[in-house]
Amino acid sequence: MRVEVEGVGEVELKILPIEFCEGRIRFIDVTKLPNELRYVETRDVKRLADAIKNMEIRGAPAIGVAAAYGLAMVAYNSEARRVEDLVREVLDAAELLRNTRPTAYNLFWAINRMCRVLEKYEGGDVRELKDMLVEEAENIRMEDIISNVKMGFIGAELVEDGDTILTHCNTGALATAGWGTALGVVRAAIYQGKKIRVVATETRPLLQGSRLTMWELLMEGVESRLITDNMVGWVMNEGIVNKVFVGSDRILLSGHVANKIGTYTIAVLAKYHNIPFYPVAPTSTIDPESKEIPIEHRDAEEVRTVLGKIEIAPRNVKVYNPAFDVTPPELVTAIVTEKGIVKPPFQEGLKNMLGKV
Amino acid sequence: MRVEVEGVGEVELKILPIEFCEGRIRFIDVTKLPNELRYVETRDVKRLADAIKNMEIRGAPAIGVAAAYGLAMVAYNSEARRVEDLVREVLDAAELLRNTRPTAYNLFWAINRMCRVLEKYEGGDVRELKDMLVEEAENIRMEDIISNVKMGFIGAELVEDGDTILTHCNTGALATAGWGTALGVVRAAIYQGKKIRVVATETRPLLQGSRLTMWELLMEGVESRLITDNMVGWVMNEGIVNKVFVGSDRILLSGHVANKIGTYTIAVLAKYHNIPFYPVAPTSTIDPESKEIPIEHRDAEEVRTVLGKIEIAPRNVKVYNPAFDVTPPELVTAIVTEKGIVKPPFQEGLKNMLGKV
Repeated sequence: MRVEVEGVGEVELKILPIEFCEGRIRFIDVTKLPNELRYVETRDVKRLADAIKNMEIRGAPAIGVAAAYGLAMVAYNSEARRVEDLVREVLDAAELLRNTRPTAYNLFWAINRMCRVLEKYEGGDVRELKDMLVEEAENIRMEDIISNVKMGFIGAELVEDGDTILTHCNTGALATAGWGTALGVVRAAIYQGKKIRVVATETRPLLQGSRLTMWELLMEGVESRLITDNMVGWVMNEGIVNKVFVGSDRILLSGHVANKIGTYTIAVLAKYHNIPFYPVAPTSTIDPESKEIPIEHRDAEEVRTVLGKIEIAPRNVKVYNPAFDVTPPELVTAIVTEKGIVKPPFQEGLKNMLGKV
Repeated sequence: MRVEVEGVGEVELKILPIEFCEGRIRFIDVTKLPNELRYVETRDVKRLADAIKNMEIRGAPAIGVAAAYGLAMVAYNSEARRVEDLVREVLDAAELLRNTRPTAYNLFWAINRMCRVLEKYEGGDVRELKDMLVEEAENIRMEDIISNVKMGFIGAELVEDGDTILTHCNTGALATAGWGTALGVVRAAIYQGKKIRVVATETRPLLQGSRLTMWELLMEGVESRLITDNMVGWVMNEGIVNKVFVGSDRILLSGHVANKIGTYTIAVLAKYHNIPFYPVAPTSTIDPESKEIPIEHRDAEEVRTVLGKIEIAPRNVKVYNPAFDVTPPELVTAIVTEKGIVKPPFQEGLKNMLGKV
């Protein structure tokens, strides 16, 4: 797919992880990568909710788009004859999707946007409301793509020829509607002809770095190296990397950044080595209420095994398995959004970004 | 095996990873743990060298003991009739063993000690020299056990009731002649009746933490939890751990500590969170020449796969795979040896430890 983005021009999206067509959602089951590029098609919102829980679809922006499409799909396939019945069906599906994963803010943001269509609708035409819901979901997806591309090129201003960027988890096309957040910055820098290299952490327990990021980087022909998570400090000490770009699952107005477990560790190491640390996320990741961030704890088997395929610890071990951590603002150099780069102090800047059209 | 240790009393060794009996070495192939407790017996020093290279035997003190036993084995089984022939055979084996792994100092220390027996011997009795070599190897092993136990109880002075200790890799019985260095401190603290908990990092790529340390901790009934390597910062931030004990493969007089990759990352994180960081190692780990530390880089497949069993990254990825890193003295709170605890500045203290009988 080729997309025209204001201020950037036309760019090509090579990987489309989630699409909606005639009442069906088609997504890449990323748990099968890199060994298999498997697409799944479904009309069933419960199947979609499971896909989000099981991380067949993951990455905060991708989860947001998937949820919006899920509600569009429920509406599209509804047999309701009255608007109130359609509304009830969609709200039930919204409730189901809200309970899939607690941390990524984009999920709630996308569902809320879809629900506002319901709230605002005053007509009595089921068909019209269905169309409006599908249109809103398509808008959310297209906005995500365009935000990603914009953000990529904005972030690329921070990247210089010769840089080696450390990244964590997968923040590429597979984590979004098709371009990427932190990996979108890498993509944009390469588009601009900058010679850069990437070091990717494997990102235990679910190995999104080795499975997904390396797959995307090799597909793009980016010079890249894979490391285990515990090598981060040493590659910084050796002078192998000079900038860090990561994604985010939720950003508070204070500048606290929730992201994949391991991000906080990287942020502390970056601070110690005077390496800039940049979270990259669309403004849909910013939580305007900014209360406490719920941290999802996942099943012990994710740590006790590798991808459920091999056992690497005794059966009866106890495990600690938070899926996310929170990096405080004092460790954040700047936050890259599609509306611009926010520097500390973050409160004012992030608020402005939310308000900006 | 029960051992009487001066100043400690009698302790029990439940796990004996390496033994020598009538010209044969018997060792636990730790690559098979935790699924299988497999013992290997050999009379072949090439097989032993491979076992060290492949990390069937690993852990700096265990490697040292294995090398000493390897030379004793060559001598014991030699058919040489003249002392000079025996000496040549043993020196050839020493050369073979020296070229197995470059970083752990104990390997060179143990081989040098065995070679000094050859150098000093002035008699002409092959049988006598064989006995002297076997005796020296047995001394090295017994000294390692006793050093470990002493060091464990010395280090346990730093442990308080209620502590939660973070440890990395495996530094237990399986990494030594039978008690452990950092894990020996845990063992000693529990012997003293202190209530402590342990958080162990899984230690990618070869997962010595999840496979070996968790196995030892569960065997001892220690309250313990397993984490992935990238969780270290977060568990420190959450206040879950309050002390770090690690092993070491080589210590320079300056206080630079080479240890399993990931140790440097943990040391930086400990400094940031004001958590004390203690390497624990026998004085045989201290390199008196203290030149540059050779860092072993291992095969890419260790990172691209998990234990060679499952592929977790595309076939053509490039990988960075240093087996060790070096923690500088400014990140080290104190070093625990069998002769006492050395505090900064390290130069003088470590030199004294080497000289101390």
